[in-house]
Amino acid sequence: MPENTFQRPSGRAPDQLRNISLEPGFTRHAEGSVLIRAGDTHVLCNASVLEKVPPFLKGKGQGWVTAEYGMLPRSTHTRSDREAAKGKQSGRTQEIQRLIGRSLRAVFDLSLLGERTLHIDCDVLQADGGTRCASITGAWLASAIAVQRLMREGILQQDPIIGSVAAVSTGLVDGRAVLDLDYQEDSSCDADMNIVMTGEGGFVEVQGTAEGRAFDRQALDSLMDLARQGIASLTRLQLEALGKASGR
Amino acid sequence: MPENTFQRPSGRAPDQLRNISLEPGFTRHAEGSVLIRAGDTHVLCNASVLEKVPPFLKGKGQGWVTAEYGMLPRSTHTRSDREAAKGKQSGRTQEIQRLIGRSLRAVFDLSLLGERTLHIDCDVLQADGGTRCASITGAWLASAIAVQRLMREGILQQDPIIGSVAAVSTGLVDGRAVLDLDYQEDSSCDADMNIVMTGEGGFVEVQGTAEGRAFDRQALDSLMDLARQGIASLTRLQLEALGKASGR
Amino acid sequence: MPENTFQRPSGRAPDQLRNISLEPGFTRHAEGSVLIRAGDTHVLCNASVLEKVPPFLKGKGQGWVTAEYGMLPRSTHTRSDREAAKGKQSGRTQEIQRLIGRSLRAVFDLSLLGERTLHIDCDVLQADGGTRCASITGAWLASAIAVQRLMREGILQQDPIIGSVAAVSTGLVDGRAVLDLDYQEDSSCDADMNIVMTGEGGFVEVQGTAEGRAFDRQALDSLMDLARQGIASLTRLQLEALGKASGR
Amino acid sequence: MPENTFQRPSGRAPDQLRNISLEPGFTRHAEGSVLIRAGDTHVLCNASVLEKVPPFLKGKGQGWVTAEYGMLPRSTHTRSDREAAKGKQSGRTQEIQRLIGRSLRAVFDLSLLGERTLHIDCDVLQADGGTRCASITGAWLASAIAVQRLMREGILQQDPIIGSVAAVSTGLVDGRAVLDLDYQEDSSCDADMNIVMTGEGGFVEVQGTAEGRAFDRQALDSLMDLARQGIASLTRLQLEALGKASGR
Amino acid sequence: MPENTFQRPSGRAPDQLRNISLEPGFTRHAEGSVLIRAGDTHVLCNASVLEKVPPFLKGKGQGWVTAEYGMLPRSTHTRSDREAAKGKQSGRTQEIQRLIGRSLRAVFDLSLLGERTLHIDCDVLQADGGTRCASITGAWLASAIAVQRLMREGILQQDPIIGSVAAVSTGLVDGRAVLDLDYQEDSSCDADMNIVMTGEGGFVEVQGTAEGRAFDRQALDSLMDLARQGIASLTRLQLEALGKASGR
Amino acid sequence: MPENTFQRPSGRAPDQLRNISLEPGFTRHAEGSVLIRAGDTHVLCNASVLEKVPPFLKGKGQGWVTAEYGMLPRSTHTRSDREAAKGKQSGRTQEIQRLIGRSLRAVFDLSLLGERTLHIDCDVLQADGGTRCASITGAWLASAIAVQRLMREGILQQDPIIGSVAAVSTGLVDGRAVLDLDYQEDSSCDADMNIVMTGEGGFVEVQGTAEGRAFDRQALDSLMDLARQGIASLTRLQLEALGKASGR
Repeated sequence: MPENTFQRPSGRAPDQLRNISLEPGFTRHAEGSVLIRAGDTHVLCNASVLEKVPPFLKGKGQGWVTAEYGMLPRSTHTRSDREAAKGKQSGRTQEIQRLIGRSLRAVFDLSLLGERTLHIDCDVLQADGGTRCASITGAWLASAIAVQRLMREGILQQDPIIGSVAAVSTGLVDGRAVLDLDYQEDSSCDADMNIVMTGEGGFVEVQGTAEGRAFDRQALDSLMDLARQGIASLTRLQLEALGKASGR
Repeated sequence: MPENTFQRPSGRAPDQLRNISLEPGFTRHAEGSVLIRAGDTHVLCNASVLEKVPPFLKGKGQGWVTAEYGMLPRSTHTRSDREAAKGKQSGRTQEIQRLIGRSLRAVFDLSLLGERTLHIDCDVLQADGGTRCASITGAWLASAIAVQRLMREGILQQDPIIGSVAAVSTGLVDGRAVLDLDYQEDSSCDADMNIVMTGEGGFVEVQGTAEGRAFDRQALDSLMDLARQGIASLTRLQLEALGKASGR
Repeated sequence: MPENTFQRPSGRAPDQLRNISLEPGFTRHAEGSVLIRAGDTHVLCNASVLEKVPPFLKGKGQGWVTAEYGMLPRSTHTRSDREAAKGKQSGRTQEIQRLIGRSLRAVFDLSLLGERTLHIDCDVLQADGGTRCASITGAWLASAIAVQRLMREGILQQDPIIGSVAAVSTGLVDGRAVLDLDYQEDSSCDADMNIVMTGEGGFVEVQGTAEGRAFDRQALDSLMDLARQGIASLTRLQLEALGKASGR
Repeated sequence: MPENTFQRPSGRAPDQLRNISLEPGFTRHAEGSVLIRAGDTHVLCNASVLEKVPPFLKGKGQGWVTAEYGMLPRSTHTRSDREAAKGKQSGRTQEIQRLIGRSLRAVFDLSLLGERTLHIDCDVLQADGGTRCASITGAWLASAIAVQRLMREGILQQDPIIGSVAAVSTGLVDGRAVLDLDYQEDSSCDADMNIVMTGEGGFVEVQGTAEGRAFDRQALDSLMDLARQGIASLTRLQLEALGKASGR
Repeated sequence: MPENTFQRPSGRAPDQLRNISLEPGFTRHAEGSVLIRAGDTHVLCNASVLEKVPPFLKGKGQGWVTAEYGMLPRSTHTRSDREAAKGKQSGRTQEIQRLIGRSLRAVFDLSLLGERTLHIDCDVLQADGGTRCASITGAWLASAIAVQRLMREGILQQDPIIGSVAAVSTGLVDGRAVLDLDYQEDSSCDADMNIVMTGEGGFVEVQGTAEGRAFDRQALDSLMDLARQGIASLTRLQLEALGKASGR
Repeated sequence: MPENTFQRPSGRAPDQLRNISLEPGFTRHAEGSVLIRAGDTHVLCNASVLEKVPPFLKGKGQGWVTAEYGMLPRSTHTRSDREAAKGKQSGRTQEIQRLIGRSLRAVFDLSLLGERTLHIDCDVLQADGGTRCASITGAWLASAIAVQRLMREGILQQDPIIGSVAAVSTGLVDGRAVLDLDYQEDSSCDADMNIVMTGEGGFVEVQGTAEGRAFDRQALDSLMDLARQGIASLTRLQLEALGKASGR
């Protein structure tokens, strides 16, 4: 496809993120609450501080960070069944919440958290592709806000967060690498990749899937390059929002 | 207690509702979407039109209206377990969603709906008491917006909605009848009552519970009087919001 | 409808209860066992004394009263699926057992019960309408018999029961208020109300539902009046049966 | 142990059944309803005629006979958890209901039943040992009553029941073979055996278990002899009760 | 049927077992691991030593022996649903694993095991009839190997196993008693019996079921005779294999 | 770490696979059955041909390929709970079986399969790291054997398999990239990556996770290089085994 005729459905440039907004304090009870909007994908990330740890950590003097994920039944184009009514979480839901938890733990020094759990709930209010990436990016901010509060209140003396983490998708659409796919692109791409990176540019998770046919090393490399760029922008937005939330 | 020393925690008068706001179009996929805020209680009500009916209605030429209810885990002061993760809905959840469904059906002529289901999801984003009442009030508006759309699109010729319905709580706090309890009042009241009424003032559901000790007929009567007053205000707000949503 | 042509299917007067029988000792293992028959509705109420309390009460020096409810699969006109086989209790079942528990706790001073639980099982052997009301009326008697036994055995020094409680349904059939609906009336009424009252005439629970169309305040008042009358009779029968059971 | 000092807790002779009573019509909705009492073991057996068959039999022109079994939570000496509340049936429950179903099918010509199911619910109201045997004996009578009704109503032309079936337990108590163990004997026996036989004396099921130590062939033989005797008595009682129920 | 024309599908003599092989050490992690092959029925029996007991035995100074059973989805002629995916074990599975556990406990002195559990997993890799019997026979050997290891390591001073146990099926095929039925015979037999016996010839469990029509005492006796013979052979093979496994 | 002192626990070179064996026909009922051994990791892969498709594909004239995964409870160093007994599959299990299914579908032309499902069961008999990769490699072979059989039997005219697929893990151990981690390496590595590739060298899935700290692009590249090499060897072994299985 000639370069100059390539057109994303949204009109975005191949390396352009959707409009991202990070709104701290969307709800009032959680120790850290953030509504992240990536275009039409809206995820509410609530970080709760629980004064307990899972059984396998009891008495070990360290903390835990974990996440749960859910989609409101009509966050999607057509209504999905409510998982609570079906009586179980889908494989996809479990896969995503395990990914969010691992991604956050990669930037936590759990020994500095004390015997408590930071439990982040990521609930998708509206979905338009990329909900797992938005969840990770928002969850980190919600966690950081909750941790700041613990430090302000003197509950923690030392910051257990050793860096930032964010996530973005990239994909091959009509043979072309693009950043931050929306639902329409996600449904028709040849391959998509979710990449979780620290603010310093290290890989935390790389998950790529060929949807149509297998892709080659060069395609992989171009997807990686786009991701690094997107993560850099997201990191900037996270730190700005955290600064504002903490009155700096 | 002398009349003049009575003081609600919120400073409201005994017959004063919380600030109510009804925001249509909060999400974009649902045929009808409303965020209702009653003070710090925020419930997202999404009405979905499904082209199917439950098995017991198949082939009967009529429709169905039903509801599901959920609370986000950190909508509450302390985090509650996620029902999808526990693998079942609590008795309280089921009780509330059955109530919402019955309340809506009371103002629907199901034979005019055709063989389709109006499925309303009420999800509590933030809770401060009175979530089931807010759900009913918001769900009616979301349903009405969805029905207007069906009529506008020519899918329905005749309006299956035969009236409005709204709900409000009343309760006895320190022996005094008050309207629209928030969480703090709800936790300490002697009795509370959830009343569902049509816009024309007919009772649809009356659910009163003595929390501390049994209450007498006179108390019941004063709770009923307050409710009628509250429902009248809510009905006005519903109709205003519906007018705006439909561009009238 | 002219007064003189009104006819209940059972031939009862509008304010007439069904034949009520309370048979203590129907089974031998429970600390309190009562078979209540209200016409063709037969509910076995077994009160068990358990030397433990639920987790949220551990170490608080008080007791708990709770109830479970079930219907035998063929207690009904057509067979219903067995809840144990389906793997969950229906919303209706949970709603009813929560109601029974709340109703009993309204007449218990739990601090006088010690750290033990009074667990009442209400199992419907045969159903003909009004099973939740019969369950409450029978459950109170079973509880009272169990408590008498604890006092007789010196396990309790002071009676934790501070009054009696009973329940009855009322409803609007063809625009006319009637007491204690059987299945046939229940299936065709315009509104029905389950009212739980103490023996002294205080309201514990009021649950009214419009089945067809909303009802007005006057109808509500007449349903309340009938209920008070029915509860008075049920209270008399409960106390008589308790007297006999305790050999007084 | 010298023969003459052997004493069963109940005072019964080694080959003596408990008092057996078979009460047809205990509930009114089931097509066949029997309360069987074997001493203090009371089981309500309700046979329902369902105009459907399980999926694996659809369109095969034959019927099905199946059973479900349950114990009321306080049918036992101490309260057991309700299976519907736990969300699953125990292995014991499933084992017993499979046994009841197989036992009944052994005396049914399913091709004569048409495409319908005879579903028998055996619910233990009070337990004192031997509930599975009582269930089988009672279930056969309930089934036979239901079948008679189908024939009387002309729904069946030919009797699908080709014989009677009953069950009894035998066991080794202090080295001595005894018939029809109650709970006290069952808890302390060396071996127990549940034997299901047709009225004509053929074996349908034989289930023997060594509780303490393995038993020898001679013991097995004496248990079999006792069972045959017990089954003969039970068969007589079944046929008598069936005759009365059918007005013969 | 004339004696001389009787022919088993496998060509075996009526009293002939299938080829039995017992392969210790089939997997490496379990304290005792045995692959038992009875013809085309292959069951992997893994005995695990767990340093805990079930709640009802805590603090009683004795151990426990229990078993679980499963079939790989395609161990059978046509694929069966995976129980883990269905979310529950079938009644058949539970019945079998309860049987295996009881059979093993019959030859264990649990007080000599200490507060630990011997947990045996019997997983059918390939099924051709008789899986429960093969499981018991293999599970005993796996248990014995695990116990030998505990003794060798000095964890146990005294052998808690007081004898061997094995199981075999017998059945009536075309009126003729045969030993050790394979799937084809099992599917078409008139009656089948699973018999669990100690190496010394005592009965532990006897489970006989008439598939077609009831069988008489003489048939029962001939099935018992065949079983005794089969158990004797199995016991010999078990002891040989144990001897080899322990280097004797 | 100096190059020359680097030592893998197994003594393998950094780019050396474990001993791989592929044993077709390990069980007899499945249309394709393969036991794959990668060192001490042993997975039984059974491919079943089912003459049905999932509901979302009914009537679309195409087939489906799906997989299920399970670990025998004592395939691991310490016993894990049986998922069938717990009543649900873990998130990890679901994640893995979704991965296996996706990987296989990447090399299938489902329109050539007809309305049937190829259902592959991957059951881990013994685990020593890398079970998901072994499952994919073995599942492809089992599928190919099953498809060959369908073609030999004339059920399929055209081969729906458009290429081979295999999987291997790579990881960073002490800063050094190694191929095909065993359990010991897997437990202590800094990062591990599971890579699924076609026989022609295209990427199907790439899943990398930083266990300790984030890794950089160079490390990623070296993991990719190793993987390509490992996949090439596995592909050769798959094709050899397939040739033998089909008698070529």
